[in-house]
Amino acid sequence: MIKVAINGYGTIGKRVADAVRAQPDMEVLGVAKTRPNFEAETAIDKGFPLYAAIEEREDQFAAAGLDIAGPVAELVDAADIVVDATPSGIGAENKSLYEEYDTPALYQGGEDAALVDTSFNARSNFEDAVDADHVRVVSCNTTGLSRAIAPLREAFGVEKVRATLVRRGGDPGQTSRGPINDILPDPVTIPSHHGPDVETIFDDLDIDTLGMKVPATLMHMHSLNVTLEEAVDAAEVRDLFGDESRLFLIPKHMSIDGSGKLKEYALDAGRPRGDIWENAVWEESISTVGRDLYLFQGIHQESDVVPENVDAIRAVTGSADAEESIRTTNEALGIGL
Amino acid sequence: MIKVAINGYGTIGKRVADAVRAQPDMEVLGVAKTRPNFEAETAIDKGFPLYAAIEEREDQFAAAGLDIAGPVAELVDAADIVVDATPSGIGAENKSLYEEYDTPALYQGGEDAALVDTSFNARSNFEDAVDADHVRVVSCNTTGLSRAIAPLREAFGVEKVRATLVRRGGDPGQTSRGPINDILPDPVTIPSHHGPDVETIFDDLDIDTLGMKVPATLMHMHSLNVTLEEAVDAAEVRDLFGDESRLFLIPKHMSIDGSGKLKEYALDAGRPRGDIWENAVWEESISTVGRDLYLFQGIHQESDVVPENVDAIRAVTGSADAEESIRTTNEALGIGL
Amino acid sequence: MIKVAINGYGTIGKRVADAVRAQPDMEVLGVAKTRPNFEAETAIDKGFPLYAAIEEREDQFAAAGLDIAGPVAELVDAADIVVDATPSGIGAENKSLYEEYDTPALYQGGEDAALVDTSFNARSNFEDAVDADHVRVVSCNTTGLSRAIAPLREAFGVEKVRATLVRRGGDPGQTSRGPINDILPDPVTIPSHHGPDVETIFDDLDIDTLGMKVPATLMHMHSLNVTLEEAVDAAEVRDLFGDESRLFLIPKHMSIDGSGKLKEYALDAGRPRGDIWENAVWEESISTVGRDLYLFQGIHQESDVVPENVDAIRAVTGSADAEESIRTTNEALGIGL
Amino acid sequence: MIKVAINGYGTIGKRVADAVRAQPDMEVLGVAKTRPNFEAETAIDKGFPLYAAIEEREDQFAAAGLDIAGPVAELVDAADIVVDATPSGIGAENKSLYEEYDTPALYQGGEDAALVDTSFNARSNFEDAVDADHVRVVSCNTTGLSRAIAPLREAFGVEKVRATLVRRGGDPGQTSRGPINDILPDPVTIPSHHGPDVETIFDDLDIDTLGMKVPATLMHMHSLNVTLEEAVDAAEVRDLFGDESRLFLIPKHMSIDGSGKLKEYALDAGRPRGDIWENAVWEESISTVGRDLYLFQGIHQESDVVPENVDAIRAVTGSADAEESIRTTNEALGIGL
Repeated sequence: MIKVAINGYGTIGKRVADAVRAQPDMEVLGVAKTRPNFEAETAIDKGFPLYAAIEEREDQFAAAGLDIAGPVAELVDAADIVVDATPSGIGAENKSLYEEYDTPALYQGGEDAALVDTSFNARSNFEDAVDADHVRVVSCNTTGLSRAIAPLREAFGVEKVRATLVRRGGDPGQTSRGPINDILPDPVTIPSHHGPDVETIFDDLDIDTLGMKVPATLMHMHSLNVTLEEAVDAAEVRDLFGDESRLFLIPKHMSIDGSGKLKEYALDAGRPRGDIWENAVWEESISTVGRDLYLFQGIHQESDVVPENVDAIRAVTGSADAEESIRTTNEALGIGL
Repeated sequence: MIKVAINGYGTIGKRVADAVRAQPDMEVLGVAKTRPNFEAETAIDKGFPLYAAIEEREDQFAAAGLDIAGPVAELVDAADIVVDATPSGIGAENKSLYEEYDTPALYQGGEDAALVDTSFNARSNFEDAVDADHVRVVSCNTTGLSRAIAPLREAFGVEKVRATLVRRGGDPGQTSRGPINDILPDPVTIPSHHGPDVETIFDDLDIDTLGMKVPATLMHMHSLNVTLEEAVDAAEVRDLFGDESRLFLIPKHMSIDGSGKLKEYALDAGRPRGDIWENAVWEESISTVGRDLYLFQGIHQESDVVPENVDAIRAVTGSADAEESIRTTNEALGIGL
Repeated sequence: MIKVAINGYGTIGKRVADAVRAQPDMEVLGVAKTRPNFEAETAIDKGFPLYAAIEEREDQFAAAGLDIAGPVAELVDAADIVVDATPSGIGAENKSLYEEYDTPALYQGGEDAALVDTSFNARSNFEDAVDADHVRVVSCNTTGLSRAIAPLREAFGVEKVRATLVRRGGDPGQTSRGPINDILPDPVTIPSHHGPDVETIFDDLDIDTLGMKVPATLMHMHSLNVTLEEAVDAAEVRDLFGDESRLFLIPKHMSIDGSGKLKEYALDAGRPRGDIWENAVWEESISTVGRDLYLFQGIHQESDVVPENVDAIRAVTGSADAEESIRTTNEALGIGL
Repeated sequence: MIKVAINGYGTIGKRVADAVRAQPDMEVLGVAKTRPNFEAETAIDKGFPLYAAIEEREDQFAAAGLDIAGPVAELVDAADIVVDATPSGIGAENKSLYEEYDTPALYQGGEDAALVDTSFNARSNFEDAVDADHVRVVSCNTTGLSRAIAPLREAFGVEKVRATLVRRGGDPGQTSRGPINDILPDPVTIPSHHGPDVETIFDDLDIDTLGMKVPATLMHMHSLNVTLEEAVDAAEVRDLFGDESRLFLIPKHMSIDGSGKLKEYALDAGRPRGDIWENAVWEESISTVGRDLYLFQGIHQESDVVPENVDAIRAVTGSADAEESIRTTNEALGIGL
């Protein structure tokens, strides 16, 4: 059993903890959190040993009636690998801690690519992370783009990618974030950072991305254009994507018009937290005009990187190859709507 | 086993179906739906026999690859009781069908009180529905108000209730509903219909309600004022409410500031669909000024009536008294956060 | 003086009425409306003769204390030209009325291109409408795209246009429209109708468009990609656009991050209704990668077609050429932020 | 002519500047701002001398091409009175500056009541500010409540006020503020600070207030309950309110359902920035049940305090009594829709 520590028990960390626990070859050694709140309560309720990410705050947990197992350093020391799921920039601060205890670490997409040995997407470059010490699982948007681009590169060749990423302003519980009633170019300069980020996965890819921010909380939406190296029929792309385990093609007859109904479907289907680990591609939207492919895909910012973190654990610990890891992760979670 | 038919498999119907299935003394005989969509798919996936609510549309289901068990009349005929969970006004149209087959029926709060023998809230007037043929489970807002008022009446006496109901504009999947950026008096006339509706449960209650509609989808929020018959300390009210199984007092240390984090907590806790069957009362908000009690409570419009429907089934079929039914329902669903 | 009738006094009609009145060579003969409301009140307050678009409803206006000048047919008969600003599809129904009185007519972008002799954008094809009887002023989005594309075609040649149109769900007063919290592919099929609509202005243009709908009310936002026939420096595009009277380049030092601050700037500057008649192009966003040009532009759905309607009046009545008309319109309205 | 300095040229300051300029007995000596942006540009365009609120930042204005008239201290020194329209808490920091130059000052409602000699609402306690040196114009919500309560106290006597204030999350240009999709008790404790704030105007009033925050930007909405000292017919209240110059009764026949259409009406009517200086009371909502009065009123957070600031200038400078000041302000601005 791979002993996994999870540092940061918020949106991503709590999902990674549940996903790790569901794997046949892993166990959650403990989770670390900076302050008591409803998430800390459920960590305790689920039986995850809870560590104080900031030692001086142990009192706050005690005041809330929450038992602390110890300081985070103890957890890092005992683990085979740590998944850092702290907010952007904190991962970089934590790196020296992981190095001190010689524990390999995964970081999330908010960290800089230069922090790590390699950036990671299971479908695209699993092998690059094998036996690496510091690996960055790329962001939700970069993960979503990589999953769609990888099979297209293999099957048809990709000349150029142009994508507009219409991003949710905040997650459902992030009540201090806006905008309330606006559509913001974000960043206003072009290209956005997402294109270069995808190039950490595919270093020879030609991609330009534009970002916006809108008053929605459920999912990001990508308007994706890929100029292929050959003219392709839309049906071929639908078939190609149909074989990808982390692409979900939304069929027309489901009458799912956006992320609200999509999440409702996931909840109805019994998905934990209504998570949509796959790219959600509207099947009807897949269209080709000559060599230009167009489509819409919804990206669930809270969960699409979760299976990627699980796979990255196996890559870094050298415990499975890409195919075996992806299959095991998918089966354990129930990926494939 | 009580054989339950569910006519209407949308927001309420699908939740009632799952809740009925979870009971030790009931089974779902089948569910009826008017058109194929993602909900019809999950009905099939869950093994609920699917009936066509509109016989002429059986073809549409076939075209979507969904097997139909038969016309809705067959289902009504075979059932001990039917739960009508169709949109407002359709229940009234369906009444003659239920009468034709002599099957007792529950209706939802969108129907008129005059349609039925009695309106129903398990905590407040379970006995009124015993052996009735046509019972209306009151709306989500009326249910929420009744649950808070009932114990206050018993413990302290209620002189007058004034409530402002700030209502979500639509459910998460209802993308055609607004407003996008407004706060609407709705209805603009005062009192709103909610007050008289609460009086179908407590016929001697003095209550005035005001309604608004805002651009949110997750829950309604009530600003509640109850003038009691005696001056009471807030702590007494907190204690009183703490004993009510369908009131959840949100503790301060959970750092839950609104319905977004509340739903996230419910999802983290493993609640199906993140449903919050209880009134969610902010514990910190419970305050008294002389005989005036004030509080905020969140009402989950999609689910708070679900346990009430289950209890109403037992009332109508005479299979348990209030206390036993509520206890069984609560245990089967896991009510009590 | 050109005698102008305006049939439909809502979002577009009331703005066209004010704009026509501001012209030195035009007068508003009257405006027609289907029902009394706050807009009808201001029509009276502004001294526009008010006609009943539906004769049988004259009573309703009387009940609201509003004097009706007569039936709409009288107005059409007396006018040199009618601007039909009725909702989509009603313009087509009205065409026979205009033909009956032999009055030339302008229609809005919601009507079908096949209804008219020519579609119209002042910057791009003014001459096509000279002496035509039935002319369609293209929609807000098509107007915005045409204004940006026309100078690029002339200066550099355009190989292909790809645009993602992120559209506001409804106007500020349209409280029944959603979505409240979603990002909808709309239409989900690709390309959207906008591309073909732009081709009614440039019949040899290669353009693919994708549409979305989001919970915002103020403006649409376009993510625009134009593959030019030659590689161009972004500065050249900024210079080119700087010379266009109906493109407003938002300078960086204004710190305008979206449509909220943009509208606030327009209101501060004294613009009537805060209208932004120009395309609002974020100057910082104008970027080139080889022959690919990218930019963000905000399109004010309520007003960008207003100066176009004014110019179309001059084209149809043959009273000025493009250059003179555009200059007159711009000066009379104060176009050019 | 009263020489007025305005320190802070944002949402409130820029409106006060325009309102002061419109008065026959006042002039704007200059406005001070902390950083260049679109508002600074329009200050220059309108011919208001622009002072640097933070002397070290003069360079930033120069870089943006904006001429600075001097440091804010110079402006304060030369003025008869300064209107401090800086963000909450900054006014308190500025007080010593105003004292240093012996210039009387107005502050906004975000400052603490203890900072000043008196809090101010023109309709309710104009006289208290006569010849005071430091006066606080109460917040938008307190202003709105005071205007409604004052005539009720005089005509019928007020036993108790209960109000739920459903507040917009941010102004239209405040894109970093949320929530996006939530209804927040805010503050979660009861009563909110608004009640005590109203008591700075009416020191013997019994009032309890509850606050919420929702995803809307246009206006606040109050659900107001006033228990009067005698039973009153709703028509009497409508008549009473009809005589109040700063209460606008929205008539039913205008078909205005919320703040979106209300603002549109104000814009159509030519109001600068679409400002609604009056409380907007839905006439249909005014209802009585025994001694309980209920109504809905919209409060335009950006502008309802503007005429109050103008009146406070006259009170502090002793240049007119309440009746004369209010009449002059109303006429100069065009108050009374």
